[in-house]
Amino acid sequence: MSDFAAVDVIRAKRDGQVLSDAQIDWVVDAYTRGVVADEQMSALAMAILLRGMTPAEIARWTAAMIASGERLDLSGIGRPTADKHSTGGVGDKITLPLTPLVAACGAAVPQLSGRGLGHTGGTLDKLESIPGWRASLSNAEFRDQLRDVGAVICAAGAELAPADRKLYALRDVTGTVEAIPLIASSIMSKKIAEGTGALVLDVKVGSGAFMKDAGQAAELARTMVELGRSAGVRTVALLTDMNTPLGLTVGNAVEVAESLEVLAGGGPPDVVELTLALAREMLDAAGLPDADPVETLRSGAAMDVWRAMIRAQGGDPDAPLPSASESELIRAETDGVVRAVDAYGIGLAAWRLGAGRARKEDPVSFGAGVVLRVRPGDSVRAGDPLCELRTDDAERIPGSLDQARSAIQVSSGPAETRPLLIDRIA
Amino acid sequence: MSDFAAVDVIRAKRDGQVLSDAQIDWVVDAYTRGVVADEQMSALAMAILLRGMTPAEIARWTAAMIASGERLDLSGIGRPTADKHSTGGVGDKITLPLTPLVAACGAAVPQLSGRGLGHTGGTLDKLESIPGWRASLSNAEFRDQLRDVGAVICAAGAELAPADRKLYALRDVTGTVEAIPLIASSIMSKKIAEGTGALVLDVKVGSGAFMKDAGQAAELARTMVELGRSAGVRTVALLTDMNTPLGLTVGNAVEVAESLEVLAGGGPPDVVELTLALAREMLDAAGLPDADPVETLRSGAAMDVWRAMIRAQGGDPDAPLPSASESELIRAETDGVVRAVDAYGIGLAAWRLGAGRARKEDPVSFGAGVVLRVRPGDSVRAGDPLCELRTDDAERIPGSLDQARSAIQVSSGPAETRPLLIDRIA
Repeated sequence: MSDFAAVDVIRAKRDGQVLSDAQIDWVVDAYTRGVVADEQMSALAMAILLRGMTPAEIARWTAAMIASGERLDLSGIGRPTADKHSTGGVGDKITLPLTPLVAACGAAVPQLSGRGLGHTGGTLDKLESIPGWRASLSNAEFRDQLRDVGAVICAAGAELAPADRKLYALRDVTGTVEAIPLIASSIMSKKIAEGTGALVLDVKVGSGAFMKDAGQAAELARTMVELGRSAGVRTVALLTDMNTPLGLTVGNAVEVAESLEVLAGGGPPDVVELTLALAREMLDAAGLPDADPVETLRSGAAMDVWRAMIRAQGGDPDAPLPSASESELIRAETDGVVRAVDAYGIGLAAWRLGAGRARKEDPVSFGAGVVLRVRPGDSVRAGDPLCELRTDDAERIPGSLDQARSAIQVSSGPAETRPLLIDRIA
Repeated sequence: MSDFAAVDVIRAKRDGQVLSDAQIDWVVDAYTRGVVADEQMSALAMAILLRGMTPAEIARWTAAMIASGERLDLSGIGRPTADKHSTGGVGDKITLPLTPLVAACGAAVPQLSGRGLGHTGGTLDKLESIPGWRASLSNAEFRDQLRDVGAVICAAGAELAPADRKLYALRDVTGTVEAIPLIASSIMSKKIAEGTGALVLDVKVGSGAFMKDAGQAAELARTMVELGRSAGVRTVALLTDMNTPLGLTVGNAVEVAESLEVLAGGGPPDVVELTLALAREMLDAAGLPDADPVETLRSGAAMDVWRAMIRAQGGDPDAPLPSASESELIRAETDGVVRAVDAYGIGLAAWRLGAGRARKEDPVSFGAGVVLRVRPGDSVRAGDPLCELRTDDAERIPGSLDQARSAIQVSSGPAETRPLLIDRIA
């Protein structure tokens, strides 16, 4: 592998050139080793954001990120593997019912998850509201649980794509999160390195997503599907709406409780619809097209896997979930119809109530969040409750009240209804 | 002054927005104080390079850089002040004869200079080849010498535009040197902070310049002239050719020797032409249009100021200059006409011989460099000397031989002749 000057690689991308394989291999490796400095990588990331990358460049960048760490081999697990990744939304607890559901249908689900980012929640933060549950597993524990239970939701180890871990933290503070080549390679390098055989991507579009624009989201989806395909992972993407929160709960423990409703055969229709749609895609991609996720939910088999999965990671599935000490109801001021429940506004309100973090090192409040009492299209009378704010810190209520209030629009006009499933890219 | 998040300022410029005055003031000040990190400023610099800045943004950025340090007041000097800045070239020793010449004509010249960068030489490096001469002066020494001698060439103090000092070092390693808003604000913040009343810019275009393109150079010149004007500094720019080295010498001591020839009334015609053109512009801008630089050179008055200026900074104007221990002649291989002497190639050869630095902390060799024996248009016979390579380290000769040889094109076709003065922007 030849040696380059970082500044020459930066200049090439800055001037709109296509980086060579050798340049990409070198710059990713040298950044991981600390030879390329943070200030050089951030300038390169900005140049990539503004100049773009060809599909071949993105594939090579992803391969270099995978090569920066170890790559798991799950071929000895004894069942087909399938994973799901969501680009992040508000109230997006789908991983919680989906993982045990797909495992109960016969696949093994190696779900490496993350923490909350900005106004969006994190699967690990939600699960940590279950007393005793731990997010960190060794590689051996991960593999054993995958074989024995079929379902694991845990934190990605430091050995998996360390270049991505370092670059992700850098992008967060340098205004370079939104680069499609970098988003796609970040997600796909971790998923390919984890060793899954099939992957379903839930690419969110709308106010509560990082991608506000359907065209950009579709481009990201196509880029990731192509990366998966060329790495030998059967990959499908669904574009789904994220203008309205998923379900009625946004927070940590409240989302776990809502997920348990789904596993018990109930739960909000949109959460059930998306869970089943993703489950069918995962099972198809894993070579199990005859599995019946509806029956698996109904029979309680998915709930059994959930309980085993929580227990295997030290959690007590029967322990009561934490609840917040303070709450405040927001009521309708007039009669009317709920026209819209804005995902971004509700996400921000939940974040301000303590469900999310201001800085990476902050703890989250497990009980904090927003519980909706209405959905778009519902008729309300003045004084009816619209949503409930929950927090451990009463001082946080005023700052989130206006946010939540203005997110829920009540008027006499027609409601804003959008299909949840927008497109499928395979 | 309000507080911002660095990432919001970066995102705004990334997305093509115009930064507000408050954003610019904050980000420059916060970067100087270390609140905005290097990796954030480099991402912002790349966004500025690719998205550009409006004239109002550039003016505010320049003002913020000036405000990061002290601003000298030279109004008590007793004569009009005039300075010159060159954007950097090969063999560009013009500051050396020009400064004492303009001072001998009645202006005071506060010339804050720099060191070599890449293939281009640095005025301070050249003057340090004079035994005893020192580049660092206190503010009091600077002011006293300006009043008593009328001419100072010295290093800029750390108190002058410290934001620029920090940003310049960052741009050098992050591929963001070439941003016109950042080049213009870097140059002009230092010149405005030094307190000169008039300023003449020598903007170089061609292979040996940082700007290869006349259109870009003209844009840079216009941007700087406007910045000077709006800060109350009478500013004029000349666009001059830098495809061929200036004069016959490229290095350190060899350029001092050639400058002394000019001060003695001789010297290469191009160096004399540019020195006189810049002197006339400086004297006009300083309100001394009746001064006669030709007569001032002829009479020896300029040489007298040179000697006083060198002595005032500890140098011995009569001491022999250092010479290199090794030399090698390059001879013409065929009869013909010298079609071109490429400035970049000769600059690189001189740099490799030891006249420049590979890293900022390296020393330069005072005796090293290239002495040309021919100019474009000269007829040569096979075996005639084309140039002489000088170095203290014989091992450096092979690496620079091919560079110098291919820079001097001898053939039967017509010579490449370009006017030295391309344009004037006022």
